Formats: sequence, C-alpha cells, structure tokens
Amino acid sequence: MTAGAVLDNIRIVLCHTSHPGNIGGAARAMKTMGLTRLHLVNPKLFPSEDSSAMAAHASDVLEAAHVHAELDPALTGTVFAVACTARSRDLSHVMLTAREAAARLVHEAARGPVALVFGPEKYGLTVKEVSRCSVIAMIPANPDYSSLNLAAAVQIFAYEARQAALATGSFAQEAFEPAPYEDVERLFGHLEQTLYDIEFLNPKSPKRLMQRLRRLFQRARLEREEVNILRGVLAAMQKSRKDP
Amino acid sequence: MTAGAVLDNIRIVLCHTSHPGNIGGAARAMKTMGLTRLHLVNPKLFPSEDSSAMAAHASDVLEAAHVHAELDPALTGTVFAVACTARSRDLSHVMLTAREAAARLVHEAARGPVALVFGPEKYGLTVKEVSRCSVIAMIPANPDYSSLNLAAAVQIFAYEARQAALATGSFAQEAFEPAPYEDVERLFGHLEQTLYDIEFLNPKSPKRLMQRLRRLFQRARLEREEVNILRGVLAAMQKSRKDP
Repeated sequence: MTAGAVLDNIRIVLCHTSHPGNIGGAARAMKTMGLTRLHLVNPKLFPSEDSSAMAAHASDVLEAAHVHAELDPALTGTVFAVACTARSRDLSHVMLTAREAAARLVHEAARGPVALVFGPEKYGLTVKEVSRCSVIAMIPANPDYSSLNLAAAVQIFAYEARQAALATGSFAQEAFEPAPYEDVERLFGHLEQTLYDIEFLNPKSPKRLMQRLRRLFQRARLEREEVNILRGVLAAMQKSRKDP
Repeated sequence: MTAGAVLDNIRIVLCHTSHPGNIGGAARAMKTMGLTRLHLVNPKLFPSEDSSAMAAHASDVLEAAHVHAELDPALTGTVFAVACTARSRDLSHVMLTAREAAARLVHEAARGPVALVFGPEKYGLTVKEVSRCSVIAMIPANPDYSSLNLAAAVQIFAYEARQAALATGSFAQEAFEPAPYEDVERLFGHLEQTLYDIEFLNPKSPKRLMQRLRRLFQRARLEREEVNILRGVLAAMQKSRKDP
C-alpha cells in the first residue's frame, strides 16, 4: 500500500464546530497534508462564506464533506479512531502524543478507514464521544495555555500523519481482519442489554461500568471474528437465563 | 540550560504580514508551545481588533511584540536564523525539514537568541531576506497544494521546536562564541566594499556573487573571533591595494 493510499484512508471528523471559519481552516490544513476526507458532525453553520474563505484553495475538500447529525454515522466503516483532545481525562483510555497516535493511525490505515476526531472549540469531545474512539491523543503543549485553535490542531495531526505515512514507506496488510466500528458498537449494545438481563448492571447507574468495559475492548482492538464469538457468548447467556 | 530557557531564546519574526488575524493566530500558536517573543517587520496593520480576536488568551504575546521597519533590526542579537518557506528556491542554502530545523534551532538557542523567520502570506520571503538567514526550512507538504495558512505554519514550527526542546533535556554551552547577526552583516558589507575596491565585483551585477559568498559563510556558522580575523584580512586588502 502506498503512502498516498494510506492518507486516503484517513478521515477528519469535526464534532459540533461553532465557527465556520475553523471548518474552512481545517479543510486547508488537511489538503496541505494530502488528506481529503472531511466529516462534519452537527456543525453550527455549514456551508458558509466564512468556511469557503478560510479554505482558500481547498474548496474541493469542503464540497466533498459529509455532514452527519451525530458521531456514530461519521465513524461507520472505520477500524480505528483517535479522539484528539487538549487535556487528559479521568476516563483512562490509552493516551498517546500526537506523534505516537500518527504512527499508530497510519499503521491501522493500511487495513481500513481510520478517523481523527475533534470536539467543538470550547469544550472538546464529551466522555461519550471519546468512548467511541480507540485511543486518546493530545498535542504536548504549554501546560499554562494548551488551547490550540481547532484548525491549528487539525494541522498538527494532519502534519504528523503525513510525516508518519511518508516515513513508513510501504504498508503490509496484517493477517487478521479488524472489526469495523459498527460491529463493535453493536457488540457493546448487545453486551449492555445482556448485562441488564442477567441483572449484573444496575439500570439506575450503568454508565461507569460500561465505560470500563468499552475501554477494555477498545484497547484490545477487536477482530471481526472475535466480535462474532463474543456475540455468540452473549446470545448464549441470554438464552440460558431463567425467565423473569 | 532548561527547556524553558531554550524556548525563551526563540523569537518568531513575521515579515510584511497582510492579514492582522494571522498575527493573532501566530501569537496564539506561539503561546500554546511556550514561545513568547514576537517580532513584526512592516506589518500591514498592527495592532488591530482582528489580531486580538484571533490571539484569544495570547494577548500578552501581542502586547509585548516588537515592530520593526525592516528585517535587520528584528534579527539583531540573534546567533542563528531559520528562513521558513513553502517552496524550495534556486538559492541553494542548506535546506532542512521543519523537524530537522527545530533540532538545530534548539541546539543553537542554548548559545543565544535564535529566530524563525516567516514571509508574507502570498509571496513568502524575498531572496534578500532569505540571504539574511542561516538555513532554509520547509514543512514537507502535499506537492499539489503546499500553501499552509501563515498561523498554521507558525504552529507547526513552534510545535516542532517545543518537542525538540523537551526531547533534548538539558543543553550544554559550546566552547566557542558564535558571532551575532549584526557582526556577520558588517562583515558582508565590508567584504562587498573590498571586492569593489579590488575590482573583483562588477558594480553592475554584484548580487549573484555576493549571494554565493553569503551562502558559504552562513553555512560555516561564523564565530565572533573568526569575524574579527576576516575583517582584519579585508582591512589589510584595502590598505595594500594601489591607489586608484
């Protein structure tokens, strides 16, 4: 797989962006690094003149952008997603630097579509959104002022992705087939239901426990076959329990 | 020398900036990476509301900025300067990637003030401005669209400088004392005059040859003592020539 094909497998996902100018700036940042696949989740205003002005000669990236109401469809089909955040979080996903994440990203991109996910300007990604991603990455910044402009953060991650793709040269397909996002999410849904069914989860406060289970499976990077096996286990669990 | 002290020795020099918003964006990019010394050469408009808005919480960097009419005073006192460009140039200075330049920059910054020099949005630095710098650096970008936004380019270079400073840990002072910018420029002025005096230079087209000599001495990274020696040689040359 060529570096160009790897870069073509990387999508940039911008969630709930407030300022249309930042969408344009992100599109320009992407194109300068050879990325073209832009997904917008619930943007405040798009398309807009501000986006187009800031995109400069990257209007083709804007025009081809996909707009979604929420994060799930933006990640559908991906095999790996990086939550890009400005600060560390109590949810202890694997935490990488932008450079480490880029190396991992281009590795995974040789196997299927991957995503760099960015939150809104003021608040960043929610815990729920982060839990949809495989790892968290942050740009090592000044601890006294770590708030990069959104387009500038996209520029750094896109830059690191390009450098990693060019450095690696060619990319070998690995033997196993990674599970796509939607299969893993269906597994989590099935798992949560099963844990209710067997009365393992307290319906009043299921969140924290599910977050921990998500974290475990995200870290493991599930294969397609493994998802099938786990779902078989869950189905068997549900079937075997006593009728309520 | 600590990483903080090294970063404190790095100045960002923006030449002939057209859009005040980019000055603000650059200030924010600098502060997120722990840089604070901003020098503006002939900005179209400064201060301005657009600068302040784009600077967000980096208004202190803007307020402390130095404004100059031309590049020379902005480089006075520096011992090393990187010309940051988007494209390669026929003038064959040493050409580095942003990452290589950052490693070099933090090394030199342990010995005195250093500069990252950026040209205006549309045209970049002139050949004359580049010739004032020690090396040229470029961000490896998409060859089909390599035009980063100015603030985004500052973000990449500042980011690489911070990563290099943090990676290196401590910085040893080297034994020799580098010549400051103004001494080297005085040497070039003296050299040019002497080459006229001895009728080596054609007064109608001196530029190309002086560029080549600048390149040679820039690459050598002159020490203060060497500048004194060379100027002694030039003075002796002038003294020894026949009266015209």
